[in-house]
Amino acid sequence: MKKVLIIHGPNLNFTGIREKAVYGTKSLDDFNKIILEKCNELGFEAETFQSNYEGAIIDKLQECYFKGVDGIVINPGAFTHYSYAIRDAISSIGLPVVEVHLSNIHARDEFRKTSVTAPVCIGQICGFGVNSYILGLEALKMHFM
Amino acid sequence: MKKVLIIHGPNLNFTGIREKAVYGTKSLDDFNKIILEKCNELGFEAETFQSNYEGAIIDKLQECYFKGVDGIVINPGAFTHYSYAIRDAISSIGLPVVEVHLSNIHARDEFRKTSVTAPVCIGQICGFGVNSYILGLEALKMHFM
Amino acid sequence: MKKVLIIHGPNLNFTGIREKAVYGTKSLDDFNKIILEKCNELGFEAETFQSNYEGAIIDKLQECYFKGVDGIVINPGAFTHYSYAIRDAISSIGLPVVEVHLSNIHARDEFRKTSVTAPVCIGQICGFGVNSYILGLEALKMHFM
Amino acid sequence: MKKVLIIHGPNLNFTGIREKAVYGTKSLDDFNKIILEKCNELGFEAETFQSNYEGAIIDKLQECYFKGVDGIVINPGAFTHYSYAIRDAISSIGLPVVEVHLSNIHARDEFRKTSVTAPVCIGQICGFGVNSYILGLEALKMHFM
Amino acid sequence: MKKVLIIHGPNLNFTGIREKAVYGTKSLDDFNKIILEKCNELGFEAETFQSNYEGAIIDKLQECYFKGVDGIVINPGAFTHYSYAIRDAISSIGLPVVEVHLSNIHARDEFRKTSVTAPVCIGQICGFGVNSYILGLEALKMHFM
Amino acid sequence: MKKVLIIHGPNLNFTGIREKAVYGTKSLDDFNKIILEKCNELGFEAETFQSNYEGAIIDKLQECYFKGVDGIVINPGAFTHYSYAIRDAISSIGLPVVEVHLSNIHARDEFRKTSVTAPVCIGQICGFGVNSYILGLEALKMHFM
Amino acid sequence: MKKVLIIHGPNLNFTGIREKAVYGTKSLDDFNKIILEKCNELGFEAETFQSNYEGAIIDKLQECYFKGVDGIVINPGAFTHYSYAIRDAISSIGLPVVEVHLSNIHARDEFRKTSVTAPVCIGQICGFGVNSYILGLEALKMHFM
Amino acid sequence: MKKVLIIHGPNLNFTGIREKAVYGTKSLDDFNKIILEKCNELGFEAETFQSNYEGAIIDKLQECYFKGVDGIVINPGAFTHYSYAIRDAISSIGLPVVEVHLSNIHARDEFRKTSVTAPVCIGQICGFGVNSYILGLEALKMHFM
Amino acid sequence: MKKVLIIHGPNLNFTGIREKAVYGTKSLDDFNKIILEKCNELGFEAETFQSNYEGAIIDKLQECYFKGVDGIVINPGAFTHYSYAIRDAISSIGLPVVEVHLSNIHARDEFRKTSVTAPVCIGQICGFGVNSYILGLEALKMHFM
Amino acid sequence: MKKVLIIHGPNLNFTGIREKAVYGTKSLDDFNKIILEKCNELGFEAETFQSNYEGAIIDKLQECYFKGVDGIVINPGAFTHYSYAIRDAISSIGLPVVEVHLSNIHARDEFRKTSVTAPVCIGQICGFGVNSYILGLEALKMHFM
Amino acid sequence: MKKVLIIHGPNLNFTGIREKAVYGTKSLDDFNKIILEKCNELGFEAETFQSNYEGAIIDKLQECYFKGVDGIVINPGAFTHYSYAIRDAISSIGLPVVEVHLSNIHARDEFRKTSVTAPVCIGQICGFGVNSYILGLEALKMHFM
Amino acid sequence: MKKVLIIHGPNLNFTGIREKAVYGTKSLDDFNKIILEKCNELGFEAETFQSNYEGAIIDKLQECYFKGVDGIVINPGAFTHYSYAIRDAISSIGLPVVEVHLSNIHARDEFRKTSVTAPVCIGQICGFGVNSYILGLEALKMHFM
Repeated sequence: MKKVLIIHGPNLNFTGIREKAVYGTKSLDDFNKIILEKCNELGFEAETFQSNYEGAIIDKLQECYFKGVDGIVINPGAFTHYSYAIRDAISSIGLPVVEVHLSNIHARDEFRKTSVTAPVCIGQICGFGVNSYILGLEALKMHFM
Repeated sequence: MKKVLIIHGPNLNFTGIREKAVYGTKSLDDFNKIILEKCNELGFEAETFQSNYEGAIIDKLQECYFKGVDGIVINPGAFTHYSYAIRDAISSIGLPVVEVHLSNIHARDEFRKTSVTAPVCIGQICGFGVNSYILGLEALKMHFM
Repeated sequence: MKKVLIIHGPNLNFTGIREKAVYGTKSLDDFNKIILEKCNELGFEAETFQSNYEGAIIDKLQECYFKGVDGIVINPGAFTHYSYAIRDAISSIGLPVVEVHLSNIHARDEFRKTSVTAPVCIGQICGFGVNSYILGLEALKMHFM
Repeated sequence: MKKVLIIHGPNLNFTGIREKAVYGTKSLDDFNKIILEKCNELGFEAETFQSNYEGAIIDKLQECYFKGVDGIVINPGAFTHYSYAIRDAISSIGLPVVEVHLSNIHARDEFRKTSVTAPVCIGQICGFGVNSYILGLEALKMHFM
Repeated sequence: MKKVLIIHGPNLNFTGIREKAVYGTKSLDDFNKIILEKCNELGFEAETFQSNYEGAIIDKLQECYFKGVDGIVINPGAFTHYSYAIRDAISSIGLPVVEVHLSNIHARDEFRKTSVTAPVCIGQICGFGVNSYILGLEALKMHFM
Repeated sequence: MKKVLIIHGPNLNFTGIREKAVYGTKSLDDFNKIILEKCNELGFEAETFQSNYEGAIIDKLQECYFKGVDGIVINPGAFTHYSYAIRDAISSIGLPVVEVHLSNIHARDEFRKTSVTAPVCIGQICGFGVNSYILGLEALKMHFM
Repeated sequence: MKKVLIIHGPNLNFTGIREKAVYGTKSLDDFNKIILEKCNELGFEAETFQSNYEGAIIDKLQECYFKGVDGIVINPGAFTHYSYAIRDAISSIGLPVVEVHLSNIHARDEFRKTSVTAPVCIGQICGFGVNSYILGLEALKMHFM
Repeated sequence: MKKVLIIHGPNLNFTGIREKAVYGTKSLDDFNKIILEKCNELGFEAETFQSNYEGAIIDKLQECYFKGVDGIVINPGAFTHYSYAIRDAISSIGLPVVEVHLSNIHARDEFRKTSVTAPVCIGQICGFGVNSYILGLEALKMHFM
Repeated sequence: MKKVLIIHGPNLNFTGIREKAVYGTKSLDDFNKIILEKCNELGFEAETFQSNYEGAIIDKLQECYFKGVDGIVINPGAFTHYSYAIRDAISSIGLPVVEVHLSNIHARDEFRKTSVTAPVCIGQICGFGVNSYILGLEALKMHFM
Repeated sequence: MKKVLIIHGPNLNFTGIREKAVYGTKSLDDFNKIILEKCNELGFEAETFQSNYEGAIIDKLQECYFKGVDGIVINPGAFTHYSYAIRDAISSIGLPVVEVHLSNIHARDEFRKTSVTAPVCIGQICGFGVNSYILGLEALKMHFM
Repeated sequence: MKKVLIIHGPNLNFTGIREKAVYGTKSLDDFNKIILEKCNELGFEAETFQSNYEGAIIDKLQECYFKGVDGIVINPGAFTHYSYAIRDAISSIGLPVVEVHLSNIHARDEFRKTSVTAPVCIGQICGFGVNSYILGLEALKMHFM
Repeated sequence: MKKVLIIHGPNLNFTGIREKAVYGTKSLDDFNKIILEKCNELGFEAETFQSNYEGAIIDKLQECYFKGVDGIVINPGAFTHYSYAIRDAISSIGLPVVEVHLSNIHARDEFRKTSVTAPVCIGQICGFGVNSYILGLEALKMHFM
């Protein structure tokens, strides 16, 4: 049974509370429930994690290596655009990571179009709300085959 | 029953013939067979289309509007990086379009990171080989719900 | 009697169908009817042409040279922003060409402000809807005097 | 009866005196005579104005608002390229303004291609000598219908 | 008793007349009344000044030096973005100057984000409507202590 | 009674210890004493907070939403120039935030001139030492009226 | 016996008709006669091809792969500067391609100095009129040895 | 006897009053006295002029044409960096103009290195204080020979 | 006896585990052993510290000031490229800091060539593996003489 | 009989010694032997020259003018990318110069794509090893006809 | 008696031979004769020097320091635009240096507008042919007073 | 016994003569004495070399290859920022080279932060005065082990 981790970056614990026009009305708990159901359906042993700390996300990524996690779906939030430290962490652990975003980053502010983490991931999915995570998990499933 | 179109841009009729290290060994026919099976599974009435002509792709996109196509998955190939005409076509027909790429465009040449068509699509998926199309179709399915 | 050609670039055959807030409710046929009436009034023998193919527009521009067309009004659509091939065609045939746009390109997206074709035209008119064409024809008329 | 104002920016009082190869042999008085005849033909009550002072042009634009002017044709001269103050004045008075230029600004020095005032005008016409003004007046006429 | 001058740049004599959504409904007279009351409260001898002429503002700034003005609050309007001449004037008189803006210039058009005058002021305040002036006066008050 | 929070970003707990020529001789405790007295005067219930952790500042900002804080004054320190995560946090909680800086960031190093957080604040105040905070509180006061 | 293809891009069917100062007085037929004589001399089985359509050139390049063409000399005309699609076609067929230009592209407009196709060719020759093709054929000859 | 005009741009009427470390202790009157003595020595009939108004400088330049002035030495002050209107005025009157600056503009702020007026002058002299004017007059003298 | 601190930034606790081709096979413990031996030889009282948290590194740097540390060798890892907060911390504590990197950052990805922290260090050493630390310690030794 | 000079720039005396994968195994002597044989075949009186000194190459170019050399083939090596002094020398002597490179400069590092010398040459040939020189000589031959 | 050196950079030994439209018909010997006469008139002991070698010019500049030269007039030719080594030499010897150019560098190619050497000179004079040197010598004279 | 060469670029023969605040009071002879002592201590057979000629440095680098030098420490001076020719020389000889600078180039002018030579060296050391050379020699020593 494959073990996967789903990481939510900064401010994602705030979805569904405000800015509903952009990010929808679902809370992070709603997200996690949908995500874990999908994991169950795909036969994954799964854990979710959220933090507003860049360091905590790096610690978690390194922990994945030691605990034998098989794949990761990550939404780095705003860290996407400048955290070379998370990029290095992804690169150093050598596990398959799929980057996802709720919104279509190509249709927003200029600075949101650049991802410093995507080059070390196996792929990127954006623009489908919580379904970006669902598609990311399916992408991992296909990757494991 | 939803009708979808899958568009392959320039040079995609050449996959599986050379540059196998980058694009894999599957031919476009292999791709279409996998794609159409998935469409069948999702309950889509589907058609595939490939052209090396920018104009032919625009004609096809406009035809979708008149023939009542419900959604489109497009891999614009190299047109991704400069065809504002295809961008305008996508924008003008008002149908949900998902942009897909075989490779992770964020991990290749600088010029491949910019997409002029993605801002008018509902989302973008890249890096999973033929599975990028499969995930794109699932994204359309979710979009129709 | 002067012979003129009016060229509509990609996606202009879609005006009046969708995006009415931006481009108005008139169809390309409506446009052409208004344009041809004006030509009649100005004493021009006129023809209109639309294509989504860059190559077809270049063929048409070259044909103008051989058929003795006296002047051209062109709305290159999105080709405005990157088609150096159309620019070269305009330059090589040596006929007076007026570039027109329905909308005020200076008040829209950044990429729409740059025209690679305007430098080889005798002038540019934008922002007056179909009247941009009408003004373009009058500009040709004045140019012929 | 519609009231219109025609504004000539800096150095336009010097046309016809030198640099005739670029700007022609007509003086500003010649220009105004042609312009006012056209206004008469179009049924406009018209006034012309020239100044080398950015502030004087802003004062004049504001005066238009208070005196009930219906539309403006302006050739901002070199102010076109940097006067955000004139831009703001045009924007704040809320009247339809058409920007005109004697020469084809797209075919000259790099710095002449950028207009900071055009984005708040209803359109821009360039490249037709004094006829740019005539076309600008016709554009206003169409706008009033 | 400290003497202060409040300078309003181009088009600020038009506030409250149009574009009320952006700049509010107060007229310049309303502004000045509020500002002078505040000056009274702060124990300042105050004068206000508005002009659409860059040169007039420079003359006024120089006059401050000769008349013993102690501090200045300036809203340079659109001159903010290009008037190196006003910048030099501020720099040369050596008085404390506070730059203010009605709106939050960081949240508007790209060109409005750059201020060529702010680097020679003691500080900049923006985003609080007429209160930007009030805060500017208080900043001067604190600066005098 | 309005509740406000004052946030000091990284290294601000070091003011008054070294680099006195740039930041003055007051310690953070001195700052807070002055700030809290001002809050008292303005009738605010106030709390101050300092951290060198980006994540801790985001946590605190989110906490403000849940605890019913009415407004925030923040000096993001060096995070000003790259923390899109703090920017998103400010944006997502929807509370009025004023950005302040001790020094005039427009008159220092190039990189200090760019603020990625200011665009989502209601205003920015810089250049007045501890008085930047005082003015920020007054700005909040005015905002509440 | 080696098989080679000579491709002429957009507007090259217009050489010798106008702009003779830049491109000389020879027609495309004159060019092809000279080119084919040279091929004969070098012992090449040769074919020439011209199109104003980007798609047609890509089709032709792919056809070369299937028909066992041994080398290609291409003058991509204006496509040189933006057609990543032709670049991908050249790259995907894996044949030796020499890029040629009639004029010295380094001594003309800025935009003509950049070639997006040259990086995937074995070399580039420019500035020698029709002799650029002749030298390109000799370069292929040397490459085959 | 040759007639020359010496023009001082904005803020030059303030030299010698403050910022003495940069611009020296001489007043504009001192400058003019030195300049006029030199003119006398060179056999020039001379006039000096200073204004903080861009428009007044343009008016003056045009007046030179009508009054038969033979040459001009101008220090455009900060207008050097953005006044395309003064550039056009210099260009249109067709008289020999020498641009001078008190300080070495290449050794100061980035924005001071660019001159939009110098390209239409016969030469530029900078870095020698009031002697820049003296050298400029000698340059005119040589030009007249 | 001089007291020194050696700081390892994010992901350095992962060296020797993966990416051995780039960073070698030594673990962080191996590094620290070599470093502490060198410190002993140089007569330094030494401590090592590693964290993936930017805030923790800033806290540690400030602690150095209060505990009387004499010098610091830091490998900021990926923070090198964007942490202006660490830069400010280094600057504010006023201690001699030497920046070191295992690899030659000038011979790797573009983004790794820029260091925002080096300008406030006394020097930078890169490209010598663990010996970069050894050289850094010797540099501190020389600095203390 | 035409006289030609072949110039080899810096480091070309090192070909065939190291970096054989990039530049091949032939030494500069081998190159010159092949080149001079070709010159003989073409009926050229020829001389070769190599130097690592920019000044020596300029001296040599000027000498060509005085000694009646008819044409030059030059491989400027790394000087290609920054020596405006060699560019000026080529321009000032007014002789036909062909620029050649061993490798395809468009397929290497970014900085190698720009040539500051090519704009004043009659053409450029790159990518064919020593044959680039051979083709350059044939190009001169054609130029002389 | 003051000692001065006049340095001519690369290709200046070629003036008067070709490109007479740009640089005039005088040879370098003509220049030096005029220059030395002027030196005599100004009471300078003078020497002239020309080289196409960057290193020779640096050697000469350093020699000035040891031989007690009092001032230098230099025309660095094309080295103006990239020789940071000559810039450092000028800076290190600490003598007054005036940079001169025959032509108005602001009115030529883009790359000729930037001078990397001017920031360390006391001033720059351009556009007056050989008189630029004469004015440069007078500037030195004034500097010595 | 290892043979090493220490190369000093342009103007380094001038250290200790002027600009002592920046480069210290030691002369190049002092430097060389310290450097050679260190070489003796490390068991190196050493030679030092200085030149203001780019070509002479390239000649010397190539000589190292033929004379069996084992390693090089180079301070390219201002050549660091533009000499692609020296870069190519370093690259072509294939010996270990360490780049050193007296000052911290990251803390100086913008143009000094870029090194075109460092990418082909094994490492770079800057900011420690003559100790940069000492550390560079130790780095070579470690490299030889």
